[in-house]
Amino acid sequence: MRFSSLVEASCEAVSIRYNNKVYELQRQGHDVTVLSLGEAFFDLPLFSFDLLPLEKIYHYSHSRGILELRAALAHTYAEKYQVPVDPVSEMLVTAGSKAAIHMAFMTILDRGDEVLIPEPAWVSYPEQVKLCGARPIGVPYWIDTFHLEEFVTPRTRAIVINTPHNPTGRIYSAAELEYLLELARRRDLWILSDEAYSEFTADDSFVSLGRFDPHKKHSILFNSISKNHGISGWRIGYVIAAPEVINRVLKINQHLITCPPTILCHYVARYYDRILAITRPQIRAVVEKRRRVLQHLDALGITYLPGTATFYIFASIAPSALGSEAFCTRLLEERLVSVVPGIGYGASCDGFIRIGVGTTSMEKLCRGLDAIKELIEETAALNRAQAA
Amino acid sequence: MRFSSLVEASCEAVSIRYNNKVYELQRQGHDVTVLSLGEAFFDLPLFSFDLLPLEKIYHYSHSRGILELRAALAHTYAEKYQVPVDPVSEMLVTAGSKAAIHMAFMTILDRGDEVLIPEPAWVSYPEQVKLCGARPIGVPYWIDTFHLEEFVTPRTRAIVINTPHNPTGRIYSAAELEYLLELARRRDLWILSDEAYSEFTADDSFVSLGRFDPHKKHSILFNSISKNHGISGWRIGYVIAAPEVINRVLKINQHLITCPPTILCHYVARYYDRILAITRPQIRAVVEKRRRVLQHLDALGITYLPGTATFYIFASIAPSALGSEAFCTRLLEERLVSVVPGIGYGASCDGFIRIGVGTTSMEKLCRGLDAIKELIEETAALNRAQAA
Repeated sequence: MRFSSLVEASCEAVSIRYNNKVYELQRQGHDVTVLSLGEAFFDLPLFSFDLLPLEKIYHYSHSRGILELRAALAHTYAEKYQVPVDPVSEMLVTAGSKAAIHMAFMTILDRGDEVLIPEPAWVSYPEQVKLCGARPIGVPYWIDTFHLEEFVTPRTRAIVINTPHNPTGRIYSAAELEYLLELARRRDLWILSDEAYSEFTADDSFVSLGRFDPHKKHSILFNSISKNHGISGWRIGYVIAAPEVINRVLKINQHLITCPPTILCHYVARYYDRILAITRPQIRAVVEKRRRVLQHLDALGITYLPGTATFYIFASIAPSALGSEAFCTRLLEERLVSVVPGIGYGASCDGFIRIGVGTTSMEKLCRGLDAIKELIEETAALNRAQAA
Repeated sequence: MRFSSLVEASCEAVSIRYNNKVYELQRQGHDVTVLSLGEAFFDLPLFSFDLLPLEKIYHYSHSRGILELRAALAHTYAEKYQVPVDPVSEMLVTAGSKAAIHMAFMTILDRGDEVLIPEPAWVSYPEQVKLCGARPIGVPYWIDTFHLEEFVTPRTRAIVINTPHNPTGRIYSAAELEYLLELARRRDLWILSDEAYSEFTADDSFVSLGRFDPHKKHSILFNSISKNHGISGWRIGYVIAAPEVINRVLKINQHLITCPPTILCHYVARYYDRILAITRPQIRAVVEKRRRVLQHLDALGITYLPGTATFYIFASIAPSALGSEAFCTRLLEERLVSVVPGIGYGASCDGFIRIGVGTTSMEKLCRGLDAIKELIEETAALNRAQAA
């Protein structure tokens, strides 16, 4: 049987593949130190579903998402991030920000178009671009934002950034964002800004791209209730853009998704402030934990790309002789520690691994880091032995 | 700004567009007789969420859907429809069967491929095919299944059927399904069978395509928890296919959706039998109501395409001089009755409207049908007057 050439050319999400390996090991009764998940665990009570409107919760709802939820999210963007958002025309809520990003790519890309993706690049951006028949152009991690123009060609349609950044934890500065918008205006590009980790900062240093483009002429913003509210598995994300973009995403959403899960949207809309009040201090605690993990890495002599936010660290495995995938497979199989191979984040990133600190106790985390250090040394020694 | 040519070429889902008009009218306080919804309303209690595993419900889950739910669904397919399904390798649960169908199209279609879609065709099939860069070939409603081969070309990759059928309520016979599979083997095609309304029958006359293709060599099946369990807004659907198909859908699902909403999957898995026990008699009542609506249409002299299942009727508006879209707009604006224009279901269907009987009382329904009859007569008279 013949299958789609686009699908054959796309790669499995390496983070999900490793996490499925973890699920299998756990089902077999193994105690895995899980540093590979794309989420943070919170202590979050379950509020009453009985207070939600029973006549509505089972049914389809507006294909932009229920207005109450859009209004709450728009209010947050306006108040907290100084981005004016009209919840009626400039926002669409759907089944996760992943789906929102893909539909935005579908909206703006034609076959053969190019999208610049600074590496390390979140694993699904390049695959989504490829599934649209367009070309993801990975920009090596050592190229800074102010040099991205060197990669712009007549076929470039968009640049995707992630701020705060998964997996480095880096927050794009106001100067970088203003430069990107200036470049977008000059070269007629879209800047897609994935802001799913906007709450995961140690201070209020996060700046939304939308702040510098209030009319959203060149920017498309994504955010997620999943990450910021500690409910990754509920699959509720949203896109903020100009009405002409949103209307096209809406058309796609109607054919692919219909609407996000109605009952969960009503739940989040009703308990929005209470959920945030519970998760915010826990988010700060996770970011603080991340800071302490960096100290532990410093003590071990493991380096990492700079960043202060999120619950991820992109750590170097140098001087290991292993590629990141072989490294992670051995780490998981021999030492029951799961991290994500850097190669999943771009060709320039094979010397790195992603460590997630959101789901594991500090004690277990430190033992996991020690195991990483040991494997680096063991495989570096092997390297020297082989070279000799 | 330039947008994707595929998205520019795709059409808004006409059913959703009309339903959004209904929502707007209702918000303005109008009492609309709603015969346009793609769902049936049930009297369904909300079971306790507190009994679900709190340590799991907030988080990502397996990107095929949780195994407990897959096992329950596979069991139903085996027991009730005589289709053996391995829940581990032959099934994937995602955010609605709509998303599942789109990802299956992505899996099998290359640019320029053709997909045969018998009309009336559910509104999203052709648009999904177009969004994959392939060509939907609508087959006029008067062509029967045994003559579909006339439309097969070297570019044809698949035929999509919907059984029980939205909007006619027709159930494909065993002979038709066996013929389609024979055609598929002979011409190297996939048969996609959307079985989302499998429970919506007056008797046990539904036959799954999978029954005649136990190894799923040419068939891909879709079903939905939404429709059969009365929870359309929860967006949980699934695909059954050979492992080599499922593995490719999985890869796409990982990049577009990640997983269906975990908390709702646990809810449905836990209360599966109880939900079905409550909805099944109500489903039978809806199908019986549909039968009585047909009697009312007979009495009014309104004809319709043959069918015994679902909660839809595809009724003729002949001899109205109006196209179906103009007809539906006037019906909604002048008489506050919403139905869906037939043109949304294919070029051959402009003389029809879709009537949904799943959400309105019999009394209101009959008044709605009377309004339809009046508008047909009024616009037929206009026709004669203009012709004179």
